[in-house]
Amino acid sequence: MLALKSQQRGFSPTLYGSLVNVDTQIPSTISVFAPATVANVGSAFDVLGFALDAPGDTVTAHRTNSGKISIISISGDEGRLSRQADENTAGVSISALLTYLNKRDANKYTSVGFEIDLRKGLPIGSGLGSSSASTVAAVVAANELLGSPLTRAELLPFAMEGERVACGAAHADNVAPCLLGGFILIRSYEPLDVISLPSPASVWVAVVSPHLELKTFDARRVLRRSVPLESAVAQWGNVAALVAGIYQGDVALMGRSLEDRIIEPERAELIPGYGTAKQSALDAGATGCSLSGSGPSLFALCSSQHQAERVADSMAQSFATLGITATSYTSRVNSNGATIVGRH
Amino acid sequence: MLALKSQQRGFSPTLYGSLVNVDTQIPSTISVFAPATVANVGSAFDVLGFALDAPGDTVTAHRTNSGKISIISISGDEGRLSRQADENTAGVSISALLTYLNKRDANKYTSVGFEIDLRKGLPIGSGLGSSSASTVAAVVAANELLGSPLTRAELLPFAMEGERVACGAAHADNVAPCLLGGFILIRSYEPLDVISLPSPASVWVAVVSPHLELKTFDARRVLRRSVPLESAVAQWGNVAALVAGIYQGDVALMGRSLEDRIIEPERAELIPGYGTAKQSALDAGATGCSLSGSGPSLFALCSSQHQAERVADSMAQSFATLGITATSYTSRVNSNGATIVGRH
Repeated sequence: MLALKSQQRGFSPTLYGSLVNVDTQIPSTISVFAPATVANVGSAFDVLGFALDAPGDTVTAHRTNSGKISIISISGDEGRLSRQADENTAGVSISALLTYLNKRDANKYTSVGFEIDLRKGLPIGSGLGSSSASTVAAVVAANELLGSPLTRAELLPFAMEGERVACGAAHADNVAPCLLGGFILIRSYEPLDVISLPSPASVWVAVVSPHLELKTFDARRVLRRSVPLESAVAQWGNVAALVAGIYQGDVALMGRSLEDRIIEPERAELIPGYGTAKQSALDAGATGCSLSGSGPSLFALCSSQHQAERVADSMAQSFATLGITATSYTSRVNSNGATIVGRH
Repeated sequence: MLALKSQQRGFSPTLYGSLVNVDTQIPSTISVFAPATVANVGSAFDVLGFALDAPGDTVTAHRTNSGKISIISISGDEGRLSRQADENTAGVSISALLTYLNKRDANKYTSVGFEIDLRKGLPIGSGLGSSSASTVAAVVAANELLGSPLTRAELLPFAMEGERVACGAAHADNVAPCLLGGFILIRSYEPLDVISLPSPASVWVAVVSPHLELKTFDARRVLRRSVPLESAVAQWGNVAALVAGIYQGDVALMGRSLEDRIIEPERAELIPGYGTAKQSALDAGATGCSLSGSGPSLFALCSSQHQAERVADSMAQSFATLGITATSYTSRVNSNGATIVGRH
């Protein structure tokens, strides 16, 4: 009856505290896993990304009536991430979400707080969308604890705010596939136009993450500001063919369409052993290989799990010969994105 | 038996003359219609083209044993095309085809000749693939009269040779859709990598061809040689989304993805009334509008025949207010390409 009354009268912050846990549909604590993502995707620099099954980050969020967002603990980051909610991607994205909802819904959520526990399964600065996974897991968890006022797709701008803290720009090419799963195309930012492409079951992905750190920041700095028209045309021919390959589930077409004449040649210079690792992937049967994000991780497209494992091993061995340790992964394209893994 | 003997012994030019008309499967005269095509397709400059149902050119070819290619007649060109086979796109493409086949098949075709009648239904220099239609119709007719030694797709390089005579470069973005139908993507030229995309039935095309002439040659000269990276990225985001729209049959997505920040702004300057004609198309309901080829024709994407007719009319009227006469067309995307329209 109390819940019913509050709905009839409009929502009151005073009543709100007493409502927590009354509605049994909404848990008070939730755990969300958000996966690694590959952005840039060869020729499709800045416009395409896709999600992997693993690794990923897990956020456990507990809803309180403190009106505050607190980072309770972070593990797996070697102490490198800020525990201040307003400096942490997870805290910032939840804060952006609450600000929006309070504006939309007449301050309905001003007394809501969250306690966040973040378990990093993704290496930081590896080019696998580490900050995106944290921000997406956080914003999905918070939305769920609020009774899902927004759809998954509607959460994107708030996840992008978290990305802005980490990268200095609100890019969507990691957060969108992390949130929504599959291959996601960002046609434009103003207005934001995000297109879900298919997730071809025929594709396996091999990823190798050499233990080198490269800040996105630095990787962007090496890029030339203008490109020859001829190279740009070749690039968009490849981008178009990559999208066609995704729709057709044609791993060979996807692989050869990764060819990137503009970004990769400049960024590869920053990664010792890049060329030989890429060649070893192709020699082991990958249809194509490129940088993941701004590196230093590499991804390669393969037509079976067995091939992906062989390719991942050969890339890791290639780095090992240079004395660089590396972690390798294999995965399908994850068509689900962030997933709820626990409700309490 | 004569035919059989000649096959067993390898082909003899002396025997060949007597074989003409012996094989009743192969006609001695054939007519082929090849349709107008839209290349460049907004953001997809130089990499995408598609075929229309009409207008188009018709080649009637008669096989002889003269060992020569002769242009017997050309109509509809106002006397502007060369009647010399080695200067005419139709003659050049057939010649390239014969050269290849003679090399491949031990001079099997050295005594073969063709008499060509070309009826131009396509305005020259309009941006609707006029030279491509002639070259494709010719090469398809010749191949048919030779007993189809090559597949449609295998004819592409020879049709491209005809295009080289007309445009100075062996571009494939008109000839490939003219030959094969539908939306055709040219991923690369070396090696030639041509991808057939779907032909969405949901799309209608309005075309207006103002009676202004613009040589491809001049239109290429205005293009800058380098582009800002930011514009190039925006362009390939649009190209990727255009391909996604084609696969999804989403006319709205296709339309908004035509947005071309690089080529159109420069070429539109060469076409009086371009901006107002484009706006009139959008006002009349087109989802997007851009130059066809290098202009001066415009094409607009629509979701019904009725809408396409309204859009075509409004573009033509827009030119009319400037005192520029124009011809307008409406069509579906033609999924067949060049078609045999007569055998004699």
